Amino acid sequence: MTRIAILGTGLIGTSIALALREHGKADAQIVGHDKYIDVARKAKQRGALHEVADMAHEAVRGADLVILAAPLLAIQKLMEEIAPALGPDTVVTDTGSTKAEVMRWAAELLPHPENFVGSHPMAGKTDFGPDAAESALFDGTRWIIVPAVNSTERAVNTILSLADTVGAKPMFMDAAEHDAYAAAVSHMPMMAAVALFSLGRASEAWPELSVMAAGGFRDMTRLSGTDPAMAFDIAVTNRENISHWLERFASTLLDLRDRINDVDNEGDLYKILAATEFEHAGFRNGLIGREEKVGADVSAVGAFSFSDFLAGGWVSEKLREVMKDSDDRLKKLEARDRTQRRV
Amino acid sequence: MTRIAILGTGLIGTSIALALREHGKADAQIVGHDKYIDVARKAKQRGALHEVADMAHEAVRGADLVILAAPLLAIQKLMEEIAPALGPDTVVTDTGSTKAEVMRWAAELLPHPENFVGSHPMAGKTDFGPDAAESALFDGTRWIIVPAVNSTERAVNTILSLADTVGAKPMFMDAAEHDAYAAAVSHMPMMAAVALFSLGRASEAWPELSVMAAGGFRDMTRLSGTDPAMAFDIAVTNRENISHWLERFASTLLDLRDRINDVDNEGDLYKILAATEFEHAGFRNGLIGREEKVGADVSAVGAFSFSDFLAGGWVSEKLREVMKDSDDRLKKLEARDRTQRRV
Repeated sequence: MTRIAILGTGLIGTSIALALREHGKADAQIVGHDKYIDVARKAKQRGALHEVADMAHEAVRGADLVILAAPLLAIQKLMEEIAPALGPDTVVTDTGSTKAEVMRWAAELLPHPENFVGSHPMAGKTDFGPDAAESALFDGTRWIIVPAVNSTERAVNTILSLADTVGAKPMFMDAAEHDAYAAAVSHMPMMAAVALFSLGRASEAWPELSVMAAGGFRDMTRLSGTDPAMAFDIAVTNRENISHWLERFASTLLDLRDRINDVDNEGDLYKILAATEFEHAGFRNGLIGREEKVGADVSAVGAFSFSDFLAGGWVSEKLREVMKDSDDRLKKLEARDRTQRRV
Repeated sequence: MTRIAILGTGLIGTSIALALREHGKADAQIVGHDKYIDVARKAKQRGALHEVADMAHEAVRGADLVILAAPLLAIQKLMEEIAPALGPDTVVTDTGSTKAEVMRWAAELLPHPENFVGSHPMAGKTDFGPDAAESALFDGTRWIIVPAVNSTERAVNTILSLADTVGAKPMFMDAAEHDAYAAAVSHMPMMAAVALFSLGRASEAWPELSVMAAGGFRDMTRLSGTDPAMAFDIAVTNRENISHWLERFASTLLDLRDRINDVDNEGDLYKILAATEFEHAGFRNGLIGREEKVGADVSAVGAFSFSDFLAGGWVSEKLREVMKDSDDRLKKLEARDRTQRRV
């Protein structure tokens, strides 16, 4: 019988357990451990675990697969704790949101680093803890797999099978690549949400602002509700990449400010807004990633100037509509310019 | 019988009509007009309108109340068009997202500016057009009312009653105040979403980024799907305030970058993240606005330093938890500092 140990039974760990039990790993024995015993007991009550282990090293003894689903810095500590108890064939993975540091810890701390393969399930929600767990959390989401240079084929296949069993789509990446990309689409946006919320909250006008804040502000600041322990660990294990993207975002905001203030070229501002809305509609409708035809010149295209690229890509009714609308708008703006002097 | 004219039958105009008909204005005759006749016909098909008028001035003839629910710059043009057809007692309002320019246009263009009162319903969604309209769109949301200096009591009461009838909570503000606040919680976040999406989209790594983008990036960029005509009109009618808040946001992002890179004071970063998460939980749970006890020193508190203010405000189990967690974390960080040298 397969024995699976899950260390850290919060949202991710408990959801993995629920998904494994629901999707045909009925024969597996799942043992869970959490730093907070109540959290592990709650996961068991939810039907996710067969057993709760008081100590991490007890949980991994005899396990075929160990999943480290704790906050990042706790993963390091767990590796130290379980190292003496790991069997020579036990495959180990983690679910941390950054990968370079985790891969380094695994190489240093585990007795058989070749049995380690990093994971990052690209799923989550703001609510945390076992109560928020769902067996369908990973359905159709990407599960990034980061093998070490010396990972065994058996270890990699075990993690491929894990991703597949919980309903996720596996995607291979190296740790440095992963951390750079995750900073752009996940870690930096989270920090930006923290910055945006605290900017509003610190304002003297917060009593009015908070009342006026509608869905947009709520969406844009939702990630500032991330578990602070998780956010902190991400920040300190992916500093350089997050800083890089925070700087680029700040600079893009100031570029856009300049466009908004460029009263002599209002048509350019409209084109930027229309092109972005069009691109976003494609993204929202699942037109993503490697499926997309990428023109050879994409790498040379800066923010706010991808309209040419667009025209070659997704020629559609929508593009024509946007462009026609843009033309109408420009004509109107020109007409306005002719009849009004701007002050 | 009350006659109400709605000019612009997109998401907002059609939703107002549906709400009026559902919430007890069964006796009112609602006539709609849209620049695009198909859009007005669609609104009628949805049961929002009794009549469709081909021309704006036809729609307002004999109306008791005229609601200008078009994009901002179109409101200016509509005011010019309807001015000759407005009766001496017709109350006029708009639903534009910025107010200073609208109030100026009304004073200049309308024959009886004292019958004009500005409105800004703080409701919306990314989808636009009459198909997206809902009678419940305004339920429990704020409806900002901006009277002119010479608005009649009758005009103000008519708009109060309108807001109330569609299910919204009225809130009075002057135009300058409104535009400053709306820039902070609505217009700047929308522009930030545009900047964030185009930053990712313009990246060479977009094929990977778009695949990895999970709920967080989607939430943070959702507003870049705003109707470009609406976004453009907001930008050009509220330039100064939006620029101000874009600059403050950019500078807050760079401050946060500095905190993330301050390896000697990691505890401060954790405190910021924990305090923001705590504050955000309060906001998410409706602890907002003027209901809140505001300490006398709030105006002096900068971003990232409101923890002291907090302690006086919402003393709760959660605060104690966060603080205890923070203490534990700090102890651990100190322990780590003692055992490791940072490279």
